[in-house]
Amino acid sequence: MKAEIIAIGTELLLGQIVNTNAQFISEQLAHLGVPVYYHSVVGDNRDRLLAQLEISVTRSDILIFTGGLGPTKDDLTKETIAHFLDTRLLMDQQAMEKITQFFQKRKIFMTENNQRQALVLEGSHILQNETGLAPGMALEWQGKHFILFPGPPNELHPMFLNHASHYLQNILPYKKVVYSKVMRFCGIGESALETKLQDLIDHQTSPSLAPLAKEGEVTLRLTSYTSDQEEAELEMSSLIQEISSRVGEYLYGWDDDSLESVLVGLLAEQGMTLSIAESCTGGLLSHSITKVAGASQVFLGGVVCYSKQSKHDQLHVPQDVLEQNGAVSASTARSLADEVKKKFGSHIGVSVTGVAGPHMQEEKPIGLVYIGISLPTRTLVKEVKLVGNRLAIQTRAVKTALYYLLKEIKRE
Amino acid sequence: MKAEIIAIGTELLLGQIVNTNAQFISEQLAHLGVPVYYHSVVGDNRDRLLAQLEISVTRSDILIFTGGLGPTKDDLTKETIAHFLDTRLLMDQQAMEKITQFFQKRKIFMTENNQRQALVLEGSHILQNETGLAPGMALEWQGKHFILFPGPPNELHPMFLNHASHYLQNILPYKKVVYSKVMRFCGIGESALETKLQDLIDHQTSPSLAPLAKEGEVTLRLTSYTSDQEEAELEMSSLIQEISSRVGEYLYGWDDDSLESVLVGLLAEQGMTLSIAESCTGGLLSHSITKVAGASQVFLGGVVCYSKQSKHDQLHVPQDVLEQNGAVSASTARSLADEVKKKFGSHIGVSVTGVAGPHMQEEKPIGLVYIGISLPTRTLVKEVKLVGNRLAIQTRAVKTALYYLLKEIKRE
Repeated sequence: MKAEIIAIGTELLLGQIVNTNAQFISEQLAHLGVPVYYHSVVGDNRDRLLAQLEISVTRSDILIFTGGLGPTKDDLTKETIAHFLDTRLLMDQQAMEKITQFFQKRKIFMTENNQRQALVLEGSHILQNETGLAPGMALEWQGKHFILFPGPPNELHPMFLNHASHYLQNILPYKKVVYSKVMRFCGIGESALETKLQDLIDHQTSPSLAPLAKEGEVTLRLTSYTSDQEEAELEMSSLIQEISSRVGEYLYGWDDDSLESVLVGLLAEQGMTLSIAESCTGGLLSHSITKVAGASQVFLGGVVCYSKQSKHDQLHVPQDVLEQNGAVSASTARSLADEVKKKFGSHIGVSVTGVAGPHMQEEKPIGLVYIGISLPTRTLVKEVKLVGNRLAIQTRAVKTALYYLLKEIKRE
Repeated sequence: MKAEIIAIGTELLLGQIVNTNAQFISEQLAHLGVPVYYHSVVGDNRDRLLAQLEISVTRSDILIFTGGLGPTKDDLTKETIAHFLDTRLLMDQQAMEKITQFFQKRKIFMTENNQRQALVLEGSHILQNETGLAPGMALEWQGKHFILFPGPPNELHPMFLNHASHYLQNILPYKKVVYSKVMRFCGIGESALETKLQDLIDHQTSPSLAPLAKEGEVTLRLTSYTSDQEEAELEMSSLIQEISSRVGEYLYGWDDDSLESVLVGLLAEQGMTLSIAESCTGGLLSHSITKVAGASQVFLGGVVCYSKQSKHDQLHVPQDVLEQNGAVSASTARSLADEVKKKFGSHIGVSVTGVAGPHMQEEKPIGLVYIGISLPTRTLVKEVKLVGNRLAIQTRAVKTALYYLLKEIKRE
């Protein structure tokens, strides 16, 4: 069963957006063991989509469409596929109700084109849209499978993971178990990790090993294709043991873990609370913690002490420290971490102060960042030098702060 | 002259990387006025690439290839195209010298496969690789153009901008100026905007009009193809006037503007300063402001008052307001905005408090958000209901707060 991913949208052909949907779906299909032979992108144009359908249906067994399910006239995926398959579009009652309610609740006038979103291909299996209005659908036709997803990634992702993945597993001819696990590392670069594991990456086939560098971290994906889960877990556990013996000190989490989710979990487990004082990261560290559901259990709050004056006024950094050592200094970071902890009455205080750019500050170089960590019994400061533009430095400063914080709390 | 972009690489089909090259090239071609009708991705497989070539050469005039020019066995783009065109590969002396020097300089042994990078299609125009070893090439064949680029974006970008762009301009039949402008709207949905502009979108050809929904905003791209820039600006200005008369109240910026950059610019212009108190957005609003270079001119700082207690302790929200109306209420939002303004001594204070989910809070529904805006002479509170998961609600709350803030400051 060979798959092809067909994205529909003129905005892709104009280069206004990147086809991240093809990447996401390809990755998911790889996990399911479905080979993808082609990606195609075609504009919001009926004739060209029909021409592409002729080609794709000849060479692929599973045709996955993204985009063109919305309310506007440009959205012609369903109509064109219906024409191609010589089938009808019917109103899906449940989708229609959802759309009507959406507009009623918000007291917005519903323009007629919004109703078009509730039309579905006759005989198709509906894929629920948990985060939007246009439902997806899956349909078998002459031994070929047509699966339609909406274009917005925040609608497509949950629809794929919660609904389409199950549908796909049912239509696959083999009953192999695809079992995969992601190990997450921080504090080590991709090439250093790869060098330490080169022999395993080169020679391991099941589970296979794939390293990938992400912003501020490296992941290692282990994928097993076996006849049952027990076998998969068995062969995986010995490989994990080997990997851990070599690079275990950098391992911070698994699968969908993030530095912040692991940190929130660890703090909750230990009954500890946190507060944050941040300057150059401007609120990003606090926000990364509050992205985690349940953060309110451990995070009390923070101060974004962006101006120099606010570091003194709000967090009592001594005026002479600010003048002699500067706002970007180890002693300011130390003082901020201690003071924010006191101010919020938390167990731990963290601070970040540095130069995010684009200009130097206090004659200090762009990328110089100090991270203060005030623990119940001791305070420490880390100095790091980061590279990248303003946003990259802010992001990397946050990742680095989370990493050190995690490390120190584990050490406690 | 219709173009098609064909990316070659199994790593794309496995979802290991995103096809950002197609986006970059599409954007460049749009500026040159070359319509792109298809993107295709095919793996490192000779037969499937040959099959794709048959399809693409029939439907497109300019075939742009990316990837597969490297030294490894997987890299088969040149060999396959040579076979398809029934032409030879020749050694390019200049490229060969560069490769040899590269290895000599680094004192690394040059494996034989590296020489393959110097092979080029007979009769092709060489596109210099300023940042890598494999040269690109351009070739005319039976009225069709084949242009080959290496896959790594840092090699492709300079090659396109400094060499291929010039080649393309020479082969284009017309000598037109492509001129484009983006109008940015907030506070109106895509379908409502489209309904108001439907006749223009349907019938305008130069400039053409393309709406696009983004997170929390809608953009409208105007593209003109004229013989000179003066003509382009003239025809654009009358269309812009027409659009503004219909939906001007939602227009907040142009081209690369963002809500936060426009806001920072406006505040700086007026010599006003800002401070922020945020609960459910957890620092994201502050961070969005500090993403803008120069934010320190206008943003003094903020408090992330995440816990209920911190709203009272840090920002003096009266205990009875918190108990009777709740942390998520109009009166708390009002009080937070007023108090944070006072605390930091800024001209304006903004607050956000709401329910980001995944659970209800104080029996209030997920997505209910209050935005407080304390201006020099008056304070107002906006109540909004947002949809999406936790992160989407946080993001939309920030966009909404920025939008109202901008609107109110303009009104002052």
